[in-house]
Amino acid sequence: MRKKDIYFMQKAIELAKKGQGKTSPNPLVGAVIVKDNKVIAKGFHKRCGLAHAEVVALKKAGAKAKGATLYVNLEPCFHFGRTPPCVDKVVESGIKRVVIAVKDPNPQVKGKSINKLRRNKIKVSLGICKKEAKAVNEVFFKNIKDKFPFVAAKVAQSLDGKITTSLGQSKWITTDKSRYLARKLRDNYDAILVGAETLRKDNPKLNGVEKIPYKIIVSSSLDLPKNSYLFKNFADSTFIFTLKGPKVKDKLPDKIKVFQIKANKREVSLKKMLRKLYQLGVMSVFVEGGSDTLGRFFDQGLVDKAYFFIAPKVFGGKNSLTSIGAGGVKQIKKSHRLINLKIRKIGADILVWGNLKR
Amino acid sequence: MRKKDIYFMQKAIELAKKGQGKTSPNPLVGAVIVKDNKVIAKGFHKRCGLAHAEVVALKKAGAKAKGATLYVNLEPCFHFGRTPPCVDKVVESGIKRVVIAVKDPNPQVKGKSINKLRRNKIKVSLGICKKEAKAVNEVFFKNIKDKFPFVAAKVAQSLDGKITTSLGQSKWITTDKSRYLARKLRDNYDAILVGAETLRKDNPKLNGVEKIPYKIIVSSSLDLPKNSYLFKNFADSTFIFTLKGPKVKDKLPDKIKVFQIKANKREVSLKKMLRKLYQLGVMSVFVEGGSDTLGRFFDQGLVDKAYFFIAPKVFGGKNSLTSIGAGGVKQIKKSHRLINLKIRKIGADILVWGNLKR
Repeated sequence: MRKKDIYFMQKAIELAKKGQGKTSPNPLVGAVIVKDNKVIAKGFHKRCGLAHAEVVALKKAGAKAKGATLYVNLEPCFHFGRTPPCVDKVVESGIKRVVIAVKDPNPQVKGKSINKLRRNKIKVSLGICKKEAKAVNEVFFKNIKDKFPFVAAKVAQSLDGKITTSLGQSKWITTDKSRYLARKLRDNYDAILVGAETLRKDNPKLNGVEKIPYKIIVSSSLDLPKNSYLFKNFADSTFIFTLKGPKVKDKLPDKIKVFQIKANKREVSLKKMLRKLYQLGVMSVFVEGGSDTLGRFFDQGLVDKAYFFIAPKVFGGKNSLTSIGAGGVKQIKKSHRLINLKIRKIGADILVWGNLKR
Repeated sequence: MRKKDIYFMQKAIELAKKGQGKTSPNPLVGAVIVKDNKVIAKGFHKRCGLAHAEVVALKKAGAKAKGATLYVNLEPCFHFGRTPPCVDKVVESGIKRVVIAVKDPNPQVKGKSINKLRRNKIKVSLGICKKEAKAVNEVFFKNIKDKFPFVAAKVAQSLDGKITTSLGQSKWITTDKSRYLARKLRDNYDAILVGAETLRKDNPKLNGVEKIPYKIIVSSSLDLPKNSYLFKNFADSTFIFTLKGPKVKDKLPDKIKVFQIKANKREVSLKKMLRKLYQLGVMSVFVEGGSDTLGRFFDQGLVDKAYFFIAPKVFGGKNSLTSIGAGGVKQIKKSHRLINLKIRKIGADILVWGNLKR
């Protein structure tokens, strides 16, 4: 039974992943309906506002759902949101057993649907592939738990941790293949964030492969180039976070959305900024640099996940820019540790990624 | 035939590796004698001054060598060195065929033994597993080609390329397992080299797991702690390289061997130092730091191989010490590239190593 359950739950998780980057603020959910060891219907949540995974699968199964088992990586919803509660649809369907990877942490659900299923004589198995299910919805779990965006950091560096040579050259450190994958990663997050220095120096586009994410610039001084690519082409999806102060608007093109945030050590408070972004519906932020901006995110313990693209090249140089700057930790035991570490060769480069230990 | 040859040559190479760290200035050689698809005798070169691999194997085989095939990863020697020429022993043995991975680059040999074997009606096949055979003797090939020591660099750093925190803490970045492996690597080289700053700060022992290698300190100023562990315990195997200047000896304990070298940009010329070391019989140097010393080796293109032990931790900090300091490259296209790149997880850490591209 357990082996079978794992097999079909992994299918549900694979389906859930198909919605990656598109369901925010909703979680990623996949559902598989199984009868006599065969998948008879499947579904996943495609986009916020569209049908939930269970409903998609149940609709496909129709009358065949009677007596079948439903595998779903997250507890079905109990509440009216943009769509009616899934739990009722499951009860009505004649499904005999529901296998759930993990409880929905949302206080509006959190076990209520499981109880309702059981009250309706449906057998419920909870906890199959729980770890993978939590990982696939790491953004959602963070959002619900902390009412705060999930923060991922991305770095492209030399083997010795530099992002520029001693003369400041930074293009390109990693190969095309790594840079394409880095752009694809952008598709998984609601917003891409860079510091003012990166905007000035690189004039980036900050787009994904299949998505135009929000673009966030952090700038205490607002000393930004008015003719930057983002301001000219993506003013409506670009947010600037700066300090409270007068005449802020005069310094920038009209269309740009500017948010004034209280200072933390004379810089824009990153925590306050992230709280504001959460209110605005930005559930996840992909921080791409530069050195000082990334350093401040790490210094303040705000990073949930980090991707290091490492080129097998040594730059050397005591004055070459380090990938993670700002203050840094004082003691090794306070360093920011990556767990669930993964390593992959990306062409000639190495990608190391993991979650930050809390 | 080719598949068989590869199979037995790989055995010879594995045998050769057993001498690692012990044969200097001789190459690593393994020999396998095969008859009817079976290994009838094997041998490897254990230590400089002891018998060569072929002779060990032939002695074991005795009369059975007649008609057999000898596999050896390097061309047998042609000249009288510490032992008589192996090629003559092979001819006398009755061996019918010799499979050699790579020619001995030494001008005293370089094909002469192959010719002699052929003149004696012994069939010779050359080039099987050539790449692996050159890799296993990378030190020897470098020595013969350039009359210069082979230089390997070792770094233990955070994921973001730091070797200290912002407060200068450096112990320990990597795990016990990594540090043990790093000590084992020392066994493969004749000498371990550190800069004066590392001696002052870390007071290191610089020993291997099974070997007391030569210990080399580079110090332009000779401002060294007289009661350092090395001076007290290993004065006879410690060399100090400093600049030419008067009264050098007064600054150090009597027993210490001091070499005065011409300056290069006011620092000890590393090239001249390495040339001197070669004259002294030091065929390979393992450079362990610190930041500035490693940076200078890279800046001057002196590194043949590099080992990066990377802890999955972020230190951050613009003032935290970088693993590879000094000047650094100006342009990315001039960066020092690692080829034959290998990646391995060492417990929680990551080891990345490779050869420097020329």
